[in-house]
Parts: sequence; C-alpha cells; structure tokens
Amino acid sequence: MGIITLLTDFGADSGYPAAMKGVIYAIAPTATLIDISHGIKHHDVREGAFLLWMNIPFFPKGTVHCAVVDPSVGTARQPLIVHAGGQLLVGPDNGLLIPAARRLGSTEVFTITNEKFYRKPVSHTFHGRDIFAPIAAHLANSFPPKELGQPVEKFVKLSFGEGSQQGMTLKGEIIFVDTFGNLVTSISAQLLNAFAQLGDPLALEVGSKSAIVRFLETYEQADENELCITIGSHEQAEIAVNLGSAAQRLRAHPGDALTLRKNR
Amino acid sequence: MGIITLLTDFGADSGYPAAMKGVIYAIAPTATLIDISHGIKHHDVREGAFLLWMNIPFFPKGTVHCAVVDPSVGTARQPLIVHAGGQLLVGPDNGLLIPAARRLGSTEVFTITNEKFYRKPVSHTFHGRDIFAPIAAHLANSFPPKELGQPVEKFVKLSFGEGSQQGMTLKGEIIFVDTFGNLVTSISAQLLNAFAQLGDPLALEVGSKSAIVRFLETYEQADENELCITIGSHEQAEIAVNLGSAAQRLRAHPGDALTLRKNR
Amino acid sequence: MGIITLLTDFGADSGYPAAMKGVIYAIAPTATLIDISHGIKHHDVREGAFLLWMNIPFFPKGTVHCAVVDPSVGTARQPLIVHAGGQLLVGPDNGLLIPAARRLGSTEVFTITNEKFYRKPVSHTFHGRDIFAPIAAHLANSFPPKELGQPVEKFVKLSFGEGSQQGMTLKGEIIFVDTFGNLVTSISAQLLNAFAQLGDPLALEVGSKSAIVRFLETYEQADENELCITIGSHEQAEIAVNLGSAAQRLRAHPGDALTLRKNR
Repeated sequence: MGIITLLTDFGADSGYPAAMKGVIYAIAPTATLIDISHGIKHHDVREGAFLLWMNIPFFPKGTVHCAVVDPSVGTARQPLIVHAGGQLLVGPDNGLLIPAARRLGSTEVFTITNEKFYRKPVSHTFHGRDIFAPIAAHLANSFPPKELGQPVEKFVKLSFGEGSQQGMTLKGEIIFVDTFGNLVTSISAQLLNAFAQLGDPLALEVGSKSAIVRFLETYEQADENELCITIGSHEQAEIAVNLGSAAQRLRAHPGDALTLRKNR
Repeated sequence: MGIITLLTDFGADSGYPAAMKGVIYAIAPTATLIDISHGIKHHDVREGAFLLWMNIPFFPKGTVHCAVVDPSVGTARQPLIVHAGGQLLVGPDNGLLIPAARRLGSTEVFTITNEKFYRKPVSHTFHGRDIFAPIAAHLANSFPPKELGQPVEKFVKLSFGEGSQQGMTLKGEIIFVDTFGNLVTSISAQLLNAFAQLGDPLALEVGSKSAIVRFLETYEQADENELCITIGSHEQAEIAVNLGSAAQRLRAHPGDALTLRKNR
Repeated sequence: MGIITLLTDFGADSGYPAAMKGVIYAIAPTATLIDISHGIKHHDVREGAFLLWMNIPFFPKGTVHCAVVDPSVGTARQPLIVHAGGQLLVGPDNGLLIPAARRLGSTEVFTITNEKFYRKPVSHTFHGRDIFAPIAAHLANSFPPKELGQPVEKFVKLSFGEGSQQGMTLKGEIIFVDTFGNLVTSISAQLLNAFAQLGDPLALEVGSKSAIVRFLETYEQADENELCITIGSHEQAEIAVNLGSAAQRLRAHPGDALTLRKNR
C-alpha cells in the first residue's frame, strides 16, 4: 500500500536499482515505488543527502525512503532506520539520512540488529539489494522498526550549514548545483529577505569570481544570460542565469564559499 | 485509477520529477505514473511537444499528461488544461501541449484560474511541483476541468510543419533526432509513398550535405553503415543509417531543411 | 496484477519506452512496470543479455520480462517467448533472452506465430511497441504462451563463457563493466575461491595491462585507489578499485581476456 522511494548512486540504467525493485516487490507486491534519483555522483553522500532533504516534505506519512550511497559497503558501518514525522528512512550510517529526517522534526534512530529479513547470503558489495531493499519492503508492510533494531544515540551527523549575516555581508556556501546549473546556497529565504529587497543589486563572490547580481523574483525578470539571485523552490537563496547555467558562468561547485555584499 | 504521464526538461535524476510525484501521490494515491521523458533539452519546447505528440496515441482515454518545459516559469504566461479525444493535458501556455492535443482531434483549451488546488506558497521557479502536479492529480481524480479554469480561444500555437511536393522534389524539415540518430522529418508516410517506390534511389540534401539514399522498408535492408530513408514508427519519412547514426553522418539537427529529388 | 519488466537500448528519455508502456497499460491496466534498463549500448545484445541474467533471480514467479535490443528489427528474425522457472521472457531471437532463461533452469522456447495481438499496422522499425509490448501485456494477463506460438528447438544461443583453471593460472573474460567501473568476469565465485585465499596477491593481466591485485572480501579493505579482486554481487569474480574505476585504470572492456596467476 505504502510508497517506497529509492535514491542511489548506482545509475538508473545500471541494473542495480532493478534488482532492488525485484526484491522489494517480491516482499511488498502492492508497494508504489518512486525513484528520487539514481544519478547521485558515485560515493557523494552529501549530494544524496541533499536530494533526500529536498524531496521528503512532499511525501505523505507512511512513506519509506530507501537510500544507498554507501562508499563503505561491506564494512562495520551500521545499517540504520530513522523514524521522523511519520516517515521512515533506511540506509547506511554515514549521514545520508540525517538532514532529511531532521527536516521533519524529532527523529528516532535505530541500528538494524535483526538480520532475519536480510537476503542471504549477504553480498559484501551490494547491501542495497540484500539489506536495505528487503528492510524497506518489510517496513512498508508495517513491520515495526523496533523489532528490527536497537535505538541508538551515536550516529554519523551531516548538515549543510547555515548562512550568516555579518554587517553588510551575507556569508554562505553552495550546497547543490541542479541540472539547470542553478546554485542552491545555504542562505535561507528568510535570511536573504531580511538582508535585501527585490531589485537590489548585490556584489557576489564565489571562488575566484565576482559579479553584480540583482535580487529578483523569477529567473525571467533577468535579461537573457544575466546572473541573478532569487528565492528558489527549495526556499533557499539560489543563484541563476536566465536561460543559462550559473554553474558554468561562475565555475562554481558544491562546497564553494560565497559572499553577498550590499552594493553601495 | 487513471494514468498520469510526466514530461519535463528537469533530468530524471535531478530530484525535481520525484517532488512532482510526491505531490501527485499525496493527492491521487492510486494513480499510475509513467515518465515519458525528463531528458528534453533545457527549455526546448519543440522537442517536448514532439515527444508528447509521438506518445499520446498509445495512451488510453482518461490519461492525464503533465508536461513542463517552461522557460517562462513565474511570469504571466498562463497555465493550461487541454481536453482532446478523451485525454487531458496540463502545462504552460507556450505551445508544448498543442501538437499532441491536435493529433487527437478537436480540442478544448482552458486557462487555469481556480488556484484552490495550488501548493502554497507557489514558488516562482517550480510550477511543475506547485501548480501542474496538483492540478494533474485532481484531474486524475476526475475533478472537472471546467471548475478549474475558463475556456480560452487565444493560446500559443505550435506545429511541426508539413512536407510538400514541388514537381520532382519533396521539401521538408527535420523535426526530431532520436537516440539512435535517426532523423524524423516533416514528410508524412503518405507523401513519401506517393512520391517514390520502395527501392528508389533519392538525392537527399540536408544542410550542406548531400547523399543518395534508397527508400527501404527496414533499416536492415540497407548495407551496414548505408544511409537510407524509410517510413519510421512515427508514420513519417525517417532518414537512418543501418547500425549507425544518420545525425552524425549528416551533421543534421532539428529545424534543418531537407529536400529529396528523384534521381533520374 | 503481474510484474512486467522492460529492458531496451532505446534510452529512458527517448520516448520509446513510454510508447511501450502506453500500449501495455491499455491492455493490462493493473500491471506493475519495472525498468531494468533502457541504457544498453545501442545494438549490444550481449550487454542486454547480461543485465537480464543479472536481474532475473530477484523477480517473483509470474514476472514477464519484455526485452528489446534488436538490431535486425523488421527482418525475418523471429519474435520469441521463453518460459523458464515460472517466469516468461519476450523478445527477439538473437540470444538476448537465453542466458537469463537458462539461469532459471529448463526452458521452453516458442516462436510467436499468432499475430492476433499485434498492434496493426506493425511498423518495420519498432517491434518493441507493436509486437513485444502487447504480447507481454497479454502474457501478464495470463494468456497462455502456447496459444501465441509454436514450440521451437532452433533459436540463437548466447553464453558468457566460463573461466577455467590451468595449473597456477585462471583464465577468463570481462563480461560486463558496471557504472562504477567494476569489471565483472566470467570466473565464478566457486572457481576463484578454489584457486586463491582471501588476502592472496594475484598477478592480473587484462589486455596489455598487468597489475598485482589482492583477493579481498570488500572494496573497502583495499587502500584508496588500490586495485583488488573480490566476489561481487553477481557471485562472479570482480575486479575493482576502492573509490575508483577499474575500467579506467586498466582500460578494460567487455570481451577482453584476462588471466590471474598466483604470485609466488
């Protein structure tokens, strides 16, 4: 009945997500599967965490998110179940699940200790198929997390940071570059709205590049190929080029620091 | 119960289609979602219109198509619902929906004026998630289009053009290049069949390139790497290379004019 | 009710898989569709056969696999239905279906002779939509294969070969390169386990490259960027680079021969 989402760095066409889906449907034949993304850069836990964080508010209670970006597959890192805001997340203990879970409010974290539902033998290289997929399917079948694991206090944390204002300057970081080349920043809508007014020109620095950008409501208010800053769909300040790519223009990448100054 | 298709230029792995799906399933939990494509070239309304046109005849009555290639998101361009041949289309008023709707016969076009079902606040950059997805979901739940909008006579038109015969010459245009590099033209099967017979050699000009191509029934009747012209699966004349790419060979692109002459 | 999987070389975003899905849902509206891959290299029957072989054990009885990698579309090559281990496979007679079917045990092969369910007119270039999709949908609706075709003894065979031991040397072949650049070989887990012990260094030759690789249980036991050999999730010997690409390091491709020697 429930929805199960999948997020991996396997590649949609790699055949690996399909193996997970076969395992899931064999256990939960009436589940609805939704791919969040299989195109996370290999081993890029932060990018995976961002896409999960970005999507989780749009899913109904009862959804189970199965996320596998797992550079340490086969080692001692623990498999986790996280319960938050009526949704469940399953994946490795490397921070991947944490920003999404925190976005929904208080969280309960379990390490999976009951191996009853694992596909045996568990391969050393594909826990997505052998551990996370069957656990997600049983959770979607309403099997209680408490019977699968132990509550745990220690787990790997991850956060995208927050922008901050220092006088006439906003400081933040690029946390995601989307497929259009828009740069999602760690500066919240609230912070940018308190700092500047629509129409204001701001002096932007990202890496070694600098530019004057106008704070606009939509991309399209910018001239063609003009850089601008806007409140994006993630409710974060977003740097964009109308009908172009801000990432290309600024040669900017996730993790790059940025500053915005009022242009007096 | 119904089918909802999605077509966007967001990228399947971008996380944006997943957000639309979360919104849709929260409203229409038993809908069947089908991705037509999320790989439309960014802002390429014509390419999106072609893929929608190409697919719509294969879907049953009651299907709702939610299409978002929307370079003017956040501006005054209207959101539309189009009713045609028992199917419904939802998307921006930029021509994207029109060829597909016309293919099914007479169409009723509505601008969406009732904002009751919008996800609020509506972001300025992601109407796919905040307007088109919830409207598509409510339409799939059989909510009547008439209660969501007003019939409208003026909307942006788009057509792929039609080939024409002038004596011993057929003139047309490349309207789509598929993933195999096959060149779909604006010359209909009917026009090509009236002009030439299977086996005929024809003198082809596309852009600055020219070649002799045989009119064949299947790609495979051509020699390996031979250019040919055939009636493709879209019921249009299609230029192909057996086991190769006609687009690469001819450096051809959508929009390029082409002529075919009988080779006497 | 049943599951239908799709595997093609069309490209997920090409619009062609969507046309197949429209045709399928019009016939079998309650089927569950799963994409195994639409990213098979164009016309690469062996790669398609591998992904089908790799996935079939994870699907429940009753699943129908519809696979179309079909360089000879429109010619005399036959359309097949294969019944194996309670699952059904549909696709062209070019070897694509055979390794997967054989993995499930004894197989019954039928050529499709009853054209009743074909979409008419059958295009010469897209049997996926006009033949294989409707046949798969009717099979998912429990229509019996025997009423669609004739049992046949002659059909195109395909196998990935098997590794072999010759004294202190194992010989095999690269049969698949996955999205991480891991090299799946024709050497079975059993053969490698009988030949070497965990921790053993082995002298590897692939193409013109040679290297010493340790036989490890997980990628992560290797140092960062170290080449290793492991038992992969396919239960075959797999050459990998921890957090890197073995395919890039060794410039290796499917079909390349490889040898492993004990390093004395």
